[in-house]
Formats: sequence, structure tokens, C-alpha cells
Amino acid sequence: MGRKKTMFDQDMARKAAENLRRVREKRPLVHSITNYVVMNFTANVLLACGASPVMAHAAEEVEEMVSLAGSLVLNIGTLTPAWVEAMRKAGEKANALHVPVILDPVGAGATRLRTDSARQLIEEVSIQVIRGNASEILSLAGEKSGSRTKGVDSVHTVDQAAETVIGLAKELGTTLAVTGAADLITDGERVCRVMNGHEMMRSVTGTGCAATVIIGAFLAVCSDPLEAAATGLSYFGFAGEKAAAKASGPGSFQVALLDVLHGMKEEELRSRAKIQV
Amino acid sequence: MGRKKTMFDQDMARKAAENLRRVREKRPLVHSITNYVVMNFTANVLLACGASPVMAHAAEEVEEMVSLAGSLVLNIGTLTPAWVEAMRKAGEKANALHVPVILDPVGAGATRLRTDSARQLIEEVSIQVIRGNASEILSLAGEKSGSRTKGVDSVHTVDQAAETVIGLAKELGTTLAVTGAADLITDGERVCRVMNGHEMMRSVTGTGCAATVIIGAFLAVCSDPLEAAATGLSYFGFAGEKAAAKASGPGSFQVALLDVLHGMKEEELRSRAKIQV
Amino acid sequence: MGRKKTMFDQDMARKAAENLRRVREKRPLVHSITNYVVMNFTANVLLACGASPVMAHAAEEVEEMVSLAGSLVLNIGTLTPAWVEAMRKAGEKANALHVPVILDPVGAGATRLRTDSARQLIEEVSIQVIRGNASEILSLAGEKSGSRTKGVDSVHTVDQAAETVIGLAKELGTTLAVTGAADLITDGERVCRVMNGHEMMRSVTGTGCAATVIIGAFLAVCSDPLEAAATGLSYFGFAGEKAAAKASGPGSFQVALLDVLHGMKEEELRSRAKIQV
Repeated sequence: MGRKKTMFDQDMARKAAENLRRVREKRPLVHSITNYVVMNFTANVLLACGASPVMAHAAEEVEEMVSLAGSLVLNIGTLTPAWVEAMRKAGEKANALHVPVILDPVGAGATRLRTDSARQLIEEVSIQVIRGNASEILSLAGEKSGSRTKGVDSVHTVDQAAETVIGLAKELGTTLAVTGAADLITDGERVCRVMNGHEMMRSVTGTGCAATVIIGAFLAVCSDPLEAAATGLSYFGFAGEKAAAKASGPGSFQVALLDVLHGMKEEELRSRAKIQV
Repeated sequence: MGRKKTMFDQDMARKAAENLRRVREKRPLVHSITNYVVMNFTANVLLACGASPVMAHAAEEVEEMVSLAGSLVLNIGTLTPAWVEAMRKAGEKANALHVPVILDPVGAGATRLRTDSARQLIEEVSIQVIRGNASEILSLAGEKSGSRTKGVDSVHTVDQAAETVIGLAKELGTTLAVTGAADLITDGERVCRVMNGHEMMRSVTGTGCAATVIIGAFLAVCSDPLEAAATGLSYFGFAGEKAAAKASGPGSFQVALLDVLHGMKEEELRSRAKIQV
Repeated sequence: MGRKKTMFDQDMARKAAENLRRVREKRPLVHSITNYVVMNFTANVLLACGASPVMAHAAEEVEEMVSLAGSLVLNIGTLTPAWVEAMRKAGEKANALHVPVILDPVGAGATRLRTDSARQLIEEVSIQVIRGNASEILSLAGEKSGSRTKGVDSVHTVDQAAETVIGLAKELGTTLAVTGAADLITDGERVCRVMNGHEMMRSVTGTGCAATVIIGAFLAVCSDPLEAAATGLSYFGFAGEKAAAKASGPGSFQVALLDVLHGMKEEELRSRAKIQV
């Protein structure tokens, strides 16, 4: 018990519960320009959290839509150049209105279109949080950056990876949330680790994208990107733990995940959030 | 018991059961041009009802496809101008073939693109039913219409809202189905209220769009738009009540909703439909 | 027992179990260019099987993406000419790299765009397996082909249908998988029938498309298209049987189907696969 106290940050756990309470109270509108595969699931995840999802990608309306929103989620999972242009347009308007922006660079590193589009968005839009897996995040380093020239192959240990990510966050001037067995969140100065989660999450498509929209909802009610990302991931990861306990496979896991996100007591999250600062 | 008889229309309840029976017997093809978020869910809702869904949006094929259909559903949830053009084309062909058309003006009032697109479709296509929430429906009033100049702000009571909607239905020459805690359906002359439903429906994305496709299926087997809308909404709302009783959150609610829509006995709907005329 | 041995091929049953084992071991990347309605479901089906799904349709990246893939799935369910062009591009690259290609001609026969697009893809891309229902498959016969001139109306019996399909497979130089109450798979020389499956599968949208991606996953680990198709369909069909036993309607059936695909023991499939050669 005393040991648990030392391992996980009690203040962050309290903030996780508090941010969840605020999402449920304020029901922020989260505007997503996202991929076709996960649209339905991430909209349901946002509703389960207490937020209000809206999807709109037409260049003719993204600026108007984002002006109604509490945060903007950009996800390049099934991108085309026209969609990326709409993301840029929405992102610039969000910046002008101080609506926080979160980017999910799905598949960056896998194809040039994805890597280039993600980097272009990062250059043209001020982004508060970028969430991805390790290879996606590491692919964002510019050609000449110190983070890149080290190369992915040079990252042999978890600690080396962390060092690279911290350097990249500094370079890009944003908060990076690298999700995996344990999550690493850093703004280049501070570093958090979130130990909640369950491996069953990898058996359902869009759980990464779902983590992103939850951070989006938390960003809409919390002005510190590092805190929003860490607490949002903790909430989502703990929901995954609870859902896995109820599930008999990936189908029932996905159903249980929505039930658990919706029904989770804030007090419960406070006592079970596993965030290290 | 006697009181229930006075509150809810027995003839409409009988028609609800009868229309459900016809959908299951005829398995009408419902052609949807709809938004990405709900495509999978609404297709499954139609299958659960006994209807046959088809999604097709290419300008090159919508006319051919709608000529095979029992009804056409137009939903502007993730619209672009090209999709609206395909909706117009499909709608005009549907009119020529006397295939009934139902419009779901998702987000009308929120952005100019949505409001304008919905109004343009209403002008260019003869639409038998428009289903939306109150703010979407009220946004459809033209700039100079009596309904509009009153303004949304002037609608202070449920009765005032009803009056405005009735006037708008007359103006637009269509049947309006305003869904909410209670549903209001009117063709400008007759007025129905449907009291079935459950608040859990708001925690799942696309339940409004699902209500729309069910009306679409009922329109394919019932020539009176007011009756099709009221009975379809009653079926869907009662399914929501039953599903909520089985569910432990929005995930299991959505699953149960499909099960209940599929398994509902017509006799049961007849005895539990809450339609007022 | 002895009778069962004669009815169903034990060697194919063993191969079904073996191919499933290989999918789970190799986790092949299955690149799908598919329709909006089923993207989420088929991605989850692939994950449940043990494969890795990726969806990418931009002309700018399909060639790069398919070069990372173990197989390519083309599905014309919500096609536009631009998507078909991306499918052609991906297909040609797949051919150059010897990545197997599977086509799902959703709705071929229903509109000219679909029929023509499917035939165009078959002409321009070497396709290892085409999976569809009987009317979709029969619509693929060219204007002057013997298969076509017989006409759909002339197919009065199951045996006549089989004869037509075998002739068409020879003509097209590919393996055809016609799914229905029983599945017929032929490469023009050999003929298999798969008797696994459950009628509840017709109450969920995208089960046909799901069968296609499973064949795609099996093709990535098995070089014989006929074997990949027959064993994949047997796995999927038997999963349907098990899921139906757990389900109380189409909603819970879909959930159970993912659970069962994920949890199925290879030994169980071996003893329950119903493949006739």
C-alpha cells in the first residue's frame, strides 16, 4: 500500500478523476476529421465518455464547425491529399480560435504520403498533442533532426527510446504521447508514464484512435496538454482493464469497453490510475 | 386499462404492427446515401428490421440503384458538395419513379453548407418525410418564411414549437418528424406524437439516423408518410425501451437494440406502441 | 462416424487448421481497398483471425502500401471511378510483386458501374480468388461468353449453376468462390463445397465481405487459391455456427462471431470443417 503510493502519482490520479468529471459536466464538442475505419467507434467512445462527437471534413465547412468545438482531432488513417488540406484548414482556424488540436499520425513511416502529410500538418498547424505508437512518432523527426539521424535501429532499449522521444518533443515544440504496453508522455521537459491498459486492446481496430479522441475530450477541459494526455490515457487504459475482465474475446471486449467508459465512477479512476511523473 | 385506450391510438398501434409485418414480408430494398459514421450501424438496423440495405453514392450509378429500391434515404451527416449532387440526382430519379424519399438533415443549422444543402435538396426533390431533431428541423425554414422570422428564440414552450413545426410542414409541403424525448410528426394538417423511446438512445451515435432508415423501410410498404413515420418511430422507440432493460451501458445497448429490432413480435408492438393522434 | 469421414475431406480439414495456425503465427498484413460500410467490421474480423488489417485507398500510396502486404483485397461495395482506379493501381503493383489479390464484386449485376468495374479489374489485374454470391459471380461473364449467353434464367438447378461457375472459372482463369447456403469453390478443374455456415450470417451486414478478407488472410499464408478459399470459408462458416449458438439476435451474433473467430482452437476446426472435394 505504501509502496503503491510511491509508484504512482496521487496528484495525477486526482486530476484524472477531475478531468473525467469535467468532460461529463461540460460535454465538449470534439470535432474529428478522421479515418473511415474508426469513425463509428470513436464517435461512440466520445459519447461513452460524456463528450459530443461531430465528424465534418468538407473544406467548405470545417472552419465553421471547428469554431463550435472544444477541441479538434486530426487523424490520417485513410487520408487523401484533399482530406489533408481540409485538416490543415481546420487546424489553422482552430489555432486562430485557441481550440486545442491533437494529431494521430496513423501509419506515418509506412508510406511517404502518410509521413509527409503528418509532417506537413505539424509544420503548418500548432498542435498540442500528437499520439501514436513508437514507430509512428519516431517517423515524425525531420530529415536533419538529431532524433532522426539516430535512426530507429539505434533505439535498443526503452530508455533510449524515451530519450529520443523527449528530444523530438522539444524539437517539435509539442506534447508527444507514445502508446504501447506502457505509455510515455512528454512535452520535452516533463515525462509521464501511464501503466494502465490491457493487451486485448490490440485485438480491436481503432483503440489507438479511440485513445486519441479521449485525449481530445480531456484537452477540451484541461489546459495542460501533458496532463490531458496522461490522465486521458489512464482513464482509457483502466477502462480496458475492466472491460477485459468482462470479455470473452475481442467482440465482447469492444462492447464492454463502451459500457465501462460510460459507467466508470470518478472515484474508482482516482484510486486505480497508474500514472508516474 | 381504459385510460391507456384514451391516451394512445389503438388504430395506429395496429398499423405499426401491420407495417412491421409488411417490411418483414416484402424485405424492401432501402437505398441510402448517407454519412460514413453510421453506414454500418444503419445497414444492420435495416437488416434487423427485415429490410434490405444498399449504399451507393457514385453519380454514375445512383439512378440505376434507386430504380431497384423501395425507398431512398438521403442523410447529409458527412456531406461534401459532390455527395449532395449525387443525392439530388438520386432524388430526382426517385421522384420520377414514385420511389418515396426521406431526408435526414444532420447538422442543419450548425454550418451553412449543411443548412444550404438541406434546403437545396428540399427545393429540388419532392421529399415525403424529413426527420431530425428540433433545431435541425427549424433551421430548414426559408429566410422569409413565417416559421423562420419567428426565430428559434421565440420557441419557448413545447406547444409553440409544435405550432412552428406544423406551419413549416405546411410551408414545405412534406411530413416532418421531430424526434426527441417525445416525437412530433406532422404533415401540416394531422399531428401525431410518439411517446416510445429511452434516453440511452442518445448515448449511441447514429440512433437518429437509424430512426430515419426505419421510417424509410416503413415508407416502402406504407403509402401514408405520416403513418409510416409515426409507426416506424414507435417500433424503434419501443425497441429502445426493451434494449435498455437488457443493457449495462451504451455498448451492450447498441447490441441489444439490434437483437430486439429483429426479434420483436408484431403483437407486442401492437400492445405497446404509444402513438397519439 | 464412418459416414462423416466419407462425406467430408479429412485432408482439407487438416489444412484448414494448419492455415489458421499459420495466419496466427505470421500475422500477415492484409491491405484492403474496400467499401465504407464494412471497413470497421472487416478490420476487426482480420484482427480476430490473427491477421493485421490496413486500409489505404489514396492513389498516391496504394503501391507503397501493397508492397508491405501479404495479400490485397479489392471490394467494390461503395465504389466510385476514382476508387476503382486506385484498386487497379494497387492490383498491378501486387501482381508485379506476386502479392495475391482477391476481389469481392459487391453488387455486380445490379448496376452497370459495378458490373463494368468488376470486369475491368478482372481484365487488368491478375486475380487469384473472386468471392461473391451467385448473381454477382454470374454477372462477371463477358457479353459473348458461353457462361453468359446461357443467362441467369437458364440456371434452374444447383448442378446447372455449378457447371456454369466451373466454366466461368476456366474462362476467367481464376478461382471462384460462390457463397450461399453451401459454398462452391472452383478453379475450373477442381471443385470444393463447404457446408459450414449459419443463416444468421445473412442478418449482419458485411459477412460476405468478411468471408472475403478471411480468404485474403489465408491466401497470404497458402499458395493454393482453391485451398485458401475453401479452408478460409470453412473457418468462417464454422465460426458462424458457434456464434449462432451463443446469440439472441443479429447484434449479439456479430459480437459472438468476433469472439469465436479469435478463440477457436485449431483442433476444433479440424474436426468440424465440412469441406467436400
